Amino acid sequence: MKKIEHIGIAVKDLEAAGKIYETLLNTDCYKTEKVKSEGVETAFYQVGESKIELLGATTKESPIAKFLEKKGEGIHHIAFAVDDIKAEMERLKGEGYVLLNEEPKKGADNKLVAFLHPKSANGVLVELCQEIVEEPERIPEGDEVWDA
Amino acid sequence: MKKIEHIGIAVKDLEAAGKIYETLLNTDCYKTEKVKSEGVETAFYQVGESKIELLGATTKESPIAKFLEKKGEGIHHIAFAVDDIKAEMERLKGEGYVLLNEEPKKGADNKLVAFLHPKSANGVLVELCQEIVEEPERIPEGDEVWDA
Repeated sequence: MKKIEHIGIAVKDLEAAGKIYETLLNTDCYKTEKVKSEGVETAFYQVGESKIELLGATTKESPIAKFLEKKGEGIHHIAFAVDDIKAEMERLKGEGYVLLNEEPKKGADNKLVAFLHPKSANGVLVELCQEIVEEPERIPEGDEVWDA
Repeated sequence: MKKIEHIGIAVKDLEAAGKIYETLLNTDCYKTEKVKSEGVETAFYQVGESKIELLGATTKESPIAKFLEKKGEGIHHIAFAVDDIKAEMERLKGEGYVLLNEEPKKGADNKLVAFLHPKSANGVLVELCQEIVEEPERIPEGDEVWDA
C-alpha cells in the first residue's frame, strides 16, 4: 500500500459535520460529491497526503444509513492507495483475505475501488483505491495535421 | 493539522493481528512498544507518511481492554500530527471542542499526546500528537575545548 488515501467517517448531517471538521482540521472542504449508485454524499478535507471523507446517506437503503442505524456516527473505513488495484486484489485473495467485490468499481473522487471484508482485517473495513488516469486526447501525427 | 500521524486499531491478539497487517500492508512491523502506564502494547507499520498502530491490552483495566469488551476489534482512534500541541489544544478548546486531557501527556513513539472527546468529532476519538524533539548535546565553545 502506497499511503492512506482517505479515512471515511459516517455522519448523520453532512453540513453540520462539515463545519465541525473544517474547524477541527483547520482547512476548508475542497470538494463535495454525490455517488448516486451508493446513496452517499461526501465532503473531502485534505490533511497532508491523505484526506478525511465525511459520508452522509441520501437514501434509506444506503450502506451509510445502515451503518448509522447499527453503530452510530464514527469511522466507516480506511482507504489505501494502490498503483494496480487488480494486482493487489489478486495478491490479497491469494493470501486468503475475503474481498467484497469481485471486480473494482467506480467510487467517489475519480477512483477505482474494492473493499475487503472487516473480518479479514480485525474489524476494519479496508478499501483499496486506484486513481483513474484519463487517457490523454490523441494528438494527430504531424502529416495528418499539415495534410488536412 | 499537518498530516494523519497514525490510525490506532484495537486488537485482541497483537501477534496474530501483526501477521495479518504485515501481509495486508505488504510491509514489516518496524517497532513494538509497551506503554505501561496505559496497559497497552503497540506494533507500528509505516504507510506513506502515516502509520498503522495496532493496540493490544496488557491489563484488564487498560482502555483497550474496555474498548474490546464494549465494541470488539476495530479502529480505536485517529491521530493528527501538530507542531505545537499546547497551542492546538487552546485553539480547539476556544472553539468549544471537549478535551480529555488538560495537559499533554507522554504517549508511545516519542510523542506528546492529548485526546478530544468523540462527541466533539462525530463519534471519532481524535488524538493530537507532537514529536518530542530531544535537545542536542551541548557542544562546548572553542575556547572551552582548547583551554582544557
